[in-house]
Amino acid sequence: MILGIDPGLTRCGIGVIESLPGRRVRLVDVGVATTPAGDPLEARLVSVADRIDEWLDAHQPDAVAVERVFAQANVRTITGTAQVAGLAMVAAARRGIPVATHTPSEVKAAITGSGRAEKPQVQEMVARLLALAERPRPADAADALALAICHAWRGGATTPASSPDRGAPTAAQRAWAQAEAAARRPARRLDVVRAGRLR
Amino acid sequence: MILGIDPGLTRCGIGVIESLPGRRVRLVDVGVATTPAGDPLEARLVSVADRIDEWLDAHQPDAVAVERVFAQANVRTITGTAQVAGLAMVAAARRGIPVATHTPSEVKAAITGSGRAEKPQVQEMVARLLALAERPRPADAADALALAICHAWRGGATTPASSPDRGAPTAAQRAWAQAEAAARRPARRLDVVRAGRLR
Repeated sequence: MILGIDPGLTRCGIGVIESLPGRRVRLVDVGVATTPAGDPLEARLVSVADRIDEWLDAHQPDAVAVERVFAQANVRTITGTAQVAGLAMVAAARRGIPVATHTPSEVKAAITGSGRAEKPQVQEMVARLLALAERPRPADAADALALAICHAWRGGATTPASSPDRGAPTAAQRAWAQAEAAARRPARRLDVVRAGRLR
Repeated sequence: MILGIDPGLTRCGIGVIESLPGRRVRLVDVGVATTPAGDPLEARLVSVADRIDEWLDAHQPDAVAVERVFAQANVRTITGTAQVAGLAMVAAARRGIPVATHTPSEVKAAITGSGRAEKPQVQEMVARLLALAERPRPADAADALALAICHAWRGGATTPASSPDRGAPTAAQRAWAQAEAAARRPARRLDVVRAGRLR
């Protein structure tokens, strides 16, 4: 069981998947922790940290995958994102759960075969891989699931931040081809309802 | 008792002061939590968080003052700094201890009377205000004490990030004048030794 976290202060996506033989993946749970922008920063951070604790205790994942934080246009955003990522890493590490970080382009490459894929493409592939009738919404929920899937397929490997995405097919691209084939199953309506309830 | 935190992943300054009548301040304890740059990020974050927990439990401060994180040239640095600041805020808030953030220029203004003061000036004033024989070193330790003193004098007020520093004498400048007078006491060698031991 892998728990993916798309860190954010306003919306933090959390997704849990199970990795099955043949590079198949199954949705276990997905949700978004939100905090009101008007609350004091420390209250917001505690609130997100509490939610992450709850999810870790409820699912006891074998690994936690967190999106690696990078430079963004808005410094306010990068600060909150980095803080939530840090809280998630500490919560997992204190429970003895291995932590990995993956960059957005690593996630995109693992899921779609291209590190430069657009967000809707990633969401569409996440829905197909998990056999959902619709794309998981909001995007933060889909991103958390994409991170978890990426982690399952990369076998826990964390490559340098400057990971290239060029030329010949990568292991991720080969994995994508396999996974896409595996994803051609009837959509399970139950999972979507469940995701909706937790949102 | 006020605990100041100068957040950082490589070096996190922690300083505890007692606020006395007449705007005098007394050193209680000061130290620096360090983590090796080569360790995994989650291990470093847990290590700093553990140290902050220890200090909060040992001193049970009435308030925690954390430097507000801003844009910096190095994104790697701002990420780690923001993460440690977030961990400190959550550790304090979960204990029910009020948290305040102060910007570097607010701290400089409170301690020296000028928001554009150089670091050595701030360190020199911290040593005088706390009647230390020498400037607290490393700079992170002095910065943590400066934050705590700033918080004591501002009475917990957190002004907007764009806090001005111009024209007529401010409350901080008047406070500085008073504190400087109060600081003209014999240096207590003990405090410096103690700071050195904890470094």
